[in-house]
Amino acid sequence: MAAHNVSIAIIGAGGVGKCFLSQLEALSKRRPTPKLSLCYISTSKKALFNADYSLPVESVLQDLAASSKDPMSLSQVADYLATAPSKVVLVDNTSSQDVADTYPLFLSRGISIVTPNKKAFSGPYKLWQDIFTAAATSGAKVYHESSVGAGLPVISTLKDLVDTGDEVTKIEGVFSGTMSFLFNSFAPVEGSGGQWSAEVKKAKELGYTEPDPRDDLNGLDVARKLTILARLAGLPVESPTSFPVQSLIPKELESVSSGDEFLQRLHEFDSQMEETKAAAQQKGKVVRFVGSIDVATKAVKVGLEEFDKSHPIAALKGSDNIISFYTKRYGANPLIIQGAGAGGEVTAMGVTSDLLKVLSQIS
Amino acid sequence: MAAHNVSIAIIGAGGVGKCFLSQLEALSKRRPTPKLSLCYISTSKKALFNADYSLPVESVLQDLAASSKDPMSLSQVADYLATAPSKVVLVDNTSSQDVADTYPLFLSRGISIVTPNKKAFSGPYKLWQDIFTAAATSGAKVYHESSVGAGLPVISTLKDLVDTGDEVTKIEGVFSGTMSFLFNSFAPVEGSGGQWSAEVKKAKELGYTEPDPRDDLNGLDVARKLTILARLAGLPVESPTSFPVQSLIPKELESVSSGDEFLQRLHEFDSQMEETKAAAQQKGKVVRFVGSIDVATKAVKVGLEEFDKSHPIAALKGSDNIISFYTKRYGANPLIIQGAGAGGEVTAMGVTSDLLKVLSQIS
Repeated sequence: MAAHNVSIAIIGAGGVGKCFLSQLEALSKRRPTPKLSLCYISTSKKALFNADYSLPVESVLQDLAASSKDPMSLSQVADYLATAPSKVVLVDNTSSQDVADTYPLFLSRGISIVTPNKKAFSGPYKLWQDIFTAAATSGAKVYHESSVGAGLPVISTLKDLVDTGDEVTKIEGVFSGTMSFLFNSFAPVEGSGGQWSAEVKKAKELGYTEPDPRDDLNGLDVARKLTILARLAGLPVESPTSFPVQSLIPKELESVSSGDEFLQRLHEFDSQMEETKAAAQQKGKVVRFVGSIDVATKAVKVGLEEFDKSHPIAALKGSDNIISFYTKRYGANPLIIQGAGAGGEVTAMGVTSDLLKVLSQIS
Repeated sequence: MAAHNVSIAIIGAGGVGKCFLSQLEALSKRRPTPKLSLCYISTSKKALFNADYSLPVESVLQDLAASSKDPMSLSQVADYLATAPSKVVLVDNTSSQDVADTYPLFLSRGISIVTPNKKAFSGPYKLWQDIFTAAATSGAKVYHESSVGAGLPVISTLKDLVDTGDEVTKIEGVFSGTMSFLFNSFAPVEGSGGQWSAEVKKAKELGYTEPDPRDDLNGLDVARKLTILARLAGLPVESPTSFPVQSLIPKELESVSSGDEFLQRLHEFDSQMEETKAAAQQKGKVVRFVGSIDVATKAVKVGLEEFDKSHPIAALKGSDNIISFYTKRYGANPLIIQGAGAGGEVTAMGVTSDLLKVLSQIS
């Protein structure tokens, strides 16, 4: 069967973007159809494109580095892609709110989108509605598996449950690789674990935190992921700040000027976390940083909770995520998905598999 | 965007078939496009179809019961469906080898297939090749999520890993709800558990086994599932009998005439299983019935293994399945999927979600 050619446009060439490019190159070699061509790539500083809508994938990063072209404005990108000679998929490998805000424009012009960018789906509810209305109207596709749990099949599974008519009653889990690592070290199931501030420092040194660890500890990353899942489960959550989110940043350190100063002073507040750990221990439990969505009561929340040591959430290892879906069909034992929820390769894998799903529908 | 109408043909109206029909009816009400019509349904004894290729979904089971038509032969079904006025998806809700053997014919005539039937994908390797060659040539689709782990996203996840270029090194898990229930009761992590023959009887009474429990205990069901996963991971496994499969049927009871006689005499062999349990306990472990695929060494096997009590396979509950994918990208901690791997509703859910995937590509 003849398949139509498809053009790929990419915004962002950071950690995930580079891994995606290498997966795309391997994919093009493995699968001759549909024929994929690369028509645009940009970072915040540079861009690469030409009148033929055809860039060589193999050398694109070097060519981009050598390019003297400025990035187009996002509306220029939409114009350029809408007049491409084949169907186009835009791969947004940034975490930019500006790019996310432009999704409805791209989609309304028939350009499909795949992305790990959480911003579009966890921003104002109006943007969410605009995105899916534009897609439904034009027939363009939008996939964002890696916006929750990286390459783990979290979004696709939730969609399948909902689309086949199951009733999702509760979603619960550990949605942050950073928080997972911190609590698995700070309050392990066996042994007494480390000191809180020392564990945060270690996580930072291992590259498991954002440059300023407060961007992990404020809980917003988890709140964004819960916003996405709650909306997919049918709750019109207004924004990631419209439900209770527990921040692990001590009030006194919220406004210190740098992440480094924060790390230097964090030990002053170790006793608070130590008390939390000890309180759980006295009940034979461990403390974990989790998110949960109770669909019936529409209660969404993010913060510390205590778990029995035999609970799958307590037994998590390394920086793994775990997501449990409680549904009418699955009954008392939830459908559970577990594994690495962060990292360039697995995040890019979610993007690449989304791209394959779009290709199967538009090519 | 206009979507093409799609006709659905169904073979089989047993437990899974009935659940699927009720999910299909709900789906048609929820989603007006693409317009789905039912054009054929049959059991082994009866069939329902008409010249308009249009049957009312709501009353189809009653209409089928009242029908005086015999089922068409499978080649007649292929002729009838190939001349339908719209694209057709055949839903095979049987476990029939005859129907499975006809998949290449259906696919070559442009009829897509969704099914929980393991037979086609775990039979001779030649049939597997014929199926996917026919599909690739005609462009018809074939999906079989529920052939492993019922509605759990096992097949789709493995395909995504392979299709995006990850290297699957090992797949391991508990693939039988019956075996899961038996060993979680016989050798629990806490407590001493029950007597083997009593647990098998209890499982039979609860409806967790096949009518003759030997059909679970011979390991063939697990071997079929491993054959499917191994092939998807790239190993050309010849058949489910071409690798070591441990049977839990005592030699002396292999040829007794009925399942009832088997159950009556099973207690004579309890000491064998008791020794196996005790040997594991002495090492602080528990015994479980698992399947594993080592991709590098091409070693596929099914049988009893011992696990640390803290291992996720040991901690399984009820009749849950658990499947761990070890891959290059995921590293030391596998991607894990866990939950109910049997039951009419969750099996039908896998079929319905496969149908939605096919519809998104052909309508």
